[in-house]
Amino acid sequence: MNHEALALMLNIAIEQQQFEQAILQVQDLRPIDIADILTLIKPTLAWQLLERLPNRSTIFAYLEPHTQVAMAHEFPRESMARLIGEMPADERTDLYKHLNQEQRDALLPALAQAQREDIRRLAAYEERTAGALMTSDYATLEAQMDVNEALAALRLEAPDAETIYHAYVIDNERKLLGVVSLRVLILASPEQLIHDIMVSGPVACHVNDDQEDVAKVVARYDLIALPIVDDSGALVGIVTHDDAMDVASDEATDDFHKSGGVSTVVGRLKDVSIRILYRKRVFWLVFLVFGNLLSGLSIANFEDVIAANLVLVFFLPLLVDSGGNAGSQSATLMVRALATGDVVMRDWFSLLGREALVALMLGATMAVAIALIGYVRGDALVSLVLALSMICVVMIGSVIGMSLPFVLNKLGFDPATASAPLITSISDASGVLIYLFIASRILGIG
Amino acid sequence: MNHEALALMLNIAIEQQQFEQAILQVQDLRPIDIADILTLIKPTLAWQLLERLPNRSTIFAYLEPHTQVAMAHEFPRESMARLIGEMPADERTDLYKHLNQEQRDALLPALAQAQREDIRRLAAYEERTAGALMTSDYATLEAQMDVNEALAALRLEAPDAETIYHAYVIDNERKLLGVVSLRVLILASPEQLIHDIMVSGPVACHVNDDQEDVAKVVARYDLIALPIVDDSGALVGIVTHDDAMDVASDEATDDFHKSGGVSTVVGRLKDVSIRILYRKRVFWLVFLVFGNLLSGLSIANFEDVIAANLVLVFFLPLLVDSGGNAGSQSATLMVRALATGDVVMRDWFSLLGREALVALMLGATMAVAIALIGYVRGDALVSLVLALSMICVVMIGSVIGMSLPFVLNKLGFDPATASAPLITSISDASGVLIYLFIASRILGIG
Repeated sequence: MNHEALALMLNIAIEQQQFEQAILQVQDLRPIDIADILTLIKPTLAWQLLERLPNRSTIFAYLEPHTQVAMAHEFPRESMARLIGEMPADERTDLYKHLNQEQRDALLPALAQAQREDIRRLAAYEERTAGALMTSDYATLEAQMDVNEALAALRLEAPDAETIYHAYVIDNERKLLGVVSLRVLILASPEQLIHDIMVSGPVACHVNDDQEDVAKVVARYDLIALPIVDDSGALVGIVTHDDAMDVASDEATDDFHKSGGVSTVVGRLKDVSIRILYRKRVFWLVFLVFGNLLSGLSIANFEDVIAANLVLVFFLPLLVDSGGNAGSQSATLMVRALATGDVVMRDWFSLLGREALVALMLGATMAVAIALIGYVRGDALVSLVLALSMICVVMIGSVIGMSLPFVLNKLGFDPATASAPLITSISDASGVLIYLFIASRILGIG
Repeated sequence: MNHEALALMLNIAIEQQQFEQAILQVQDLRPIDIADILTLIKPTLAWQLLERLPNRSTIFAYLEPHTQVAMAHEFPRESMARLIGEMPADERTDLYKHLNQEQRDALLPALAQAQREDIRRLAAYEERTAGALMTSDYATLEAQMDVNEALAALRLEAPDAETIYHAYVIDNERKLLGVVSLRVLILASPEQLIHDIMVSGPVACHVNDDQEDVAKVVARYDLIALPIVDDSGALVGIVTHDDAMDVASDEATDDFHKSGGVSTVVGRLKDVSIRILYRKRVFWLVFLVFGNLLSGLSIANFEDVIAANLVLVFFLPLLVDSGGNAGSQSATLMVRALATGDVVMRDWFSLLGREALVALMLGATMAVAIALIGYVRGDALVSLVLALSMICVVMIGSVIGMSLPFVLNKLGFDPATASAPLITSISDASGVLIYLFIASRILGIG
């Protein structure tokens, strides 16, 4: 049964207070699927079902923040505090950040002291850093424990820890000494010391590291969880593989949007309001209108050449677009390679030579195509103008396209800002200038 | 010390046969870092160091296929077979696929019977499917085992399995019955039966499923490993979280490249040859040259209007680019939303209305900007032509941009083929037509 049909049935069952039947319908589904279905039901009804499900906090954690907040209005304050208390620490903090001051004030006193402090601590980290991404629900061990003691300790920690497959070995000051995997633990003999079987100096990130770098480290070292430390080297949290995968996907979406000239859109496209969509798009569009005036100015400058050779206008969109297209390709390749770490800043110069060579080959191929069309439609001279212009336009577009992401990165901007629309506008302006300049030299005026 | 400097030192140490010193330099590094450094050393020397390292098969598995093949030439056949025998099943199969027939013939007889069959079986699956991605190194349990027996079984399987954190419960015919996590196992009492603690009917994918869908399932359900079954429901492999994350990243790169009008580039940008870069880019560029001829034809059709009002040419690039830019934005938003699953095919119609409204607002904003410039440079009538054209061009570009990914998807193409360059060319052609048509109506001829 699909989610919409199930939601309809649940709606009816809950309205008639037939909770047992409703629970029966969903109990075999996974938490994220139940969460999906709950968003299709009225918040009042959804809440009545949710509070009767054993894994309610896991399901609730999968809801989008705005749905969580909408549901929070329906909850009796006590149930709400209980539910939030049961949530994973990182999800709980995310929800807290989405509450307004009044809701926070209502919530905090109902939570346990330790949970309050945990929320305050996690909420203090800047967005998009390791600190904002990590959870404080991790398992720790001491170096002098033996394997038996360690397994007993993990059994105690298991209900609260997000993962017990990696346990972190810390000293009295919580400094991170090493990591032990559960795999190694269950293979070791009971009396071996943790100190002797742990991996010392494990891969770790700093709490202020960018979340994109955190995701890259998790991917590079194939980690289930990555420990996060503070300035003193003390363990303050872990980032789990699933959260890292979500970040990698979000960052790819962000780059993708920027490459199309759209500012960062937060949330699912279907849920984003028209006002926000307008705001995220209007800046680049209007900015580029003014950018494109440069093309217009070039044209104004060569009006007499155009008037005398109207056939030039016929080829104008084709020529300038070709430069923009080649530039978009180059920029796309560079932006993604910079994002995945395949290319770094110091590679720019060595890549420039290759880019120029590829662009020359591409430009020559396209010059042949356009020269033929030019000869049919105009004459040999027009054909020559077109071929020369095409080679120049494609080469300049490509070099701009490949270099701009590096320049933007150097200036502290996201290289993905080198979007297709931006590259197109810049290439267009230079393309128009080159084309009309070459035309005026070869064809003369009149 | 950075990887380049370390590689230089190792080069010298190995050439002087000081292997102990060389091993000392790398033994605390992670396998992927050692693999990175080995690629900076001559294959003959790299091999001499590699065969002396205890975790050589893990390190070797991290090398790029072309480096693996280059190194394979240096190996004595027996060491090579031993190394390949130790590799994880999925990496071993990848390497096998990159060998030529002669190398395969030399390798296969040196492997154990079971490994030969495993390679043949895994290599038979089509590229980019679950079958090509999965590994056969997983841990299985039987439903009637108790927890003690299960833990003992996992200890035996641990050295070969990629993960023992999820163990799969199968019947006599290898049908997948359920999954047990090691977390549940170590929390259960020793005499409990697996049948009673396993999760029945776990999330699974079919061996022919697209690898992109496999990655989405792993991400959605936050899995450490995803079981893969065949037509009969028998377990044939697992896909681990780290391989799913790599696939998600590769697929994002692929979409990103397509959005910039570049065909799929395999491998790291720095390593790709100029010939391949040319081939991956030339198709779209030449295709778009012919696409852009449509714009030219529109212009040819209205040559008399242009001749009489040369000021129109001034605004031509600006107007047509605006349509392309708005269209690129819409296409970018849709392509990524379709890729992440935020939007599905049946959402098209409901999103179309929103898109038209946003485009109207954007077009109106840009119309104000261009009308002002038009009035300064031309007159009130030109200003009117520009404002009307801008609204139409932006709306049509946006609707094309948002719809094309859906149309392509419906026709069985990757929606990401709706690249910025393609949208730009289509929007340009319609933009030129609209602009000159409106101009000819309002300004008349001459």
